[in-house]
Amino acid sequence: MRRVSAVLIHHPIYDRARTIVTGAITNLDIHDISRSAHTYGLEAYYIAHPIAAQRELAERIRQHWLTGSGSRRIPDRVPPMQNLRIVSDLDEALASSGPDTELWVTSARGGEKSLPHDAARASLHGEGPPVLIAFGTGWGLADEIVERANYLLAPIRSPRPDGFNHLSVRAAAAIIFDRLLGQR
Amino acid sequence: MRRVSAVLIHHPIYDRARTIVTGAITNLDIHDISRSAHTYGLEAYYIAHPIAAQRELAERIRQHWLTGSGSRRIPDRVPPMQNLRIVSDLDEALASSGPDTELWVTSARGGEKSLPHDAARASLHGEGPPVLIAFGTGWGLADEIVERANYLLAPIRSPRPDGFNHLSVRAAAAIIFDRLLGQR
Repeated sequence: MRRVSAVLIHHPIYDRARTIVTGAITNLDIHDISRSAHTYGLEAYYIAHPIAAQRELAERIRQHWLTGSGSRRIPDRVPPMQNLRIVSDLDEALASSGPDTELWVTSARGGEKSLPHDAARASLHGEGPPVLIAFGTGWGLADEIVERANYLLAPIRSPRPDGFNHLSVRAAAAIIFDRLLGQR
Repeated sequence: MRRVSAVLIHHPIYDRARTIVTGAITNLDIHDISRSAHTYGLEAYYIAHPIAAQRELAERIRQHWLTGSGSRRIPDRVPPMQNLRIVSDLDEALASSGPDTELWVTSARGGEKSLPHDAARASLHGEGPPVLIAFGTGWGLADEIVERANYLLAPIRSPRPDGFNHLSVRAAAAIIFDRLLGQR
C-alpha cells in the first residue's frame, strides 16, 4: 500500500470568470474533508493557504477540536485533526509528504498523464512513492498547478442526461477517496 | 431506472448517549447534499424537521439561492434548490415521493432485509417502485425509523486497520449516491 495524502489548495485557483484568485478557508472544508481523509486511511490532510491570518484561523479551529473544549465534547474528531496540517502552499505539502511524492490532480484534460480511477486504485494498493492528491476550492485548480501533476485523475462524471455536475469539493473528495481506497 | 429521492431526518435521531433528540438544520446540510443529490440524478432531496421555525429557516435559505441574490451570484445552485423540499417528517416525504415508495436506510444491522450496495445499484437501474433513501443527522436514525425500512443498505466500512469511521452525513450521502448511481 502506498502512502496517500490530500491537499486542499486555496491559491492559485479560478473564480467563475476564470480569474486567478485566493479562496477563504471555510470551517466545513476543515472538518468534513479531515474526517473523510482519516476514515479512508490517508496519512495527512493539508490545507494550503498563502495568507498567515487564514492559516492562524485554521490552526485555532484545529486546536479547538484537538485540545480545546471540542475535544471533550466530540472525541471522535481528535484523530482526524491530528492528521490535519496547515501549510502555505503546495510545495510545503509536497515537502512534508516526503521525497519523490507524486502529485495527482483531478482534471478533465485527459492526455497521456490521465489515470482512470480503477488504475489509480490498483496503483495505490501496490508499491510506489507517496501520493499527494490535490483538490481546488472555488472553480478549480489553476493550470499552473495542473501542469505540475504527475497524473491526472479522471473527474467524477454526472450520470444525468443533461450532465449537470455541481458537487462541492467536500463531496468530490469523499467520492474520490471511496473510489480509490474504499473497502469493496 | 427507478425514481430515487433522499431525505435527511432531524427527528427522531440519537445523540452520543443514544437518547432520542431533535437536531438543528445546518446550512451545509442544505447545500452540499442538495448539490450531490441533483448531480446524481435524484428526483428530490427532502429535509425533514418537526419544528416550524426550523423549516422556515431552511425555506428562507432555499429561496435565497432559488430567487434571491444568491441565484444571480451562483446560478449553478438553482437546479439543486428546485429539487429541495422542506417537510415535517418521514411520512410527508414518503407521501410526496408517491404510492408504494420503498424506504431504504443505512444500517449495520444486517438480517434478511440487508441489501449490499451492488445489489442496490442493480435494483435501481431496473424497474420498480420509487425509492426514498433516509439519512440521519446526529448519531444516526432512531430504531423506530430503521424498523420501518423495506431494505437496509450496508453501511460504508472504513478500510483502516483500526476501523475508525467518522464520516459526516454529507460525505456519507455523496458516497452512497456514487456507489448506487455513479457513472462507471
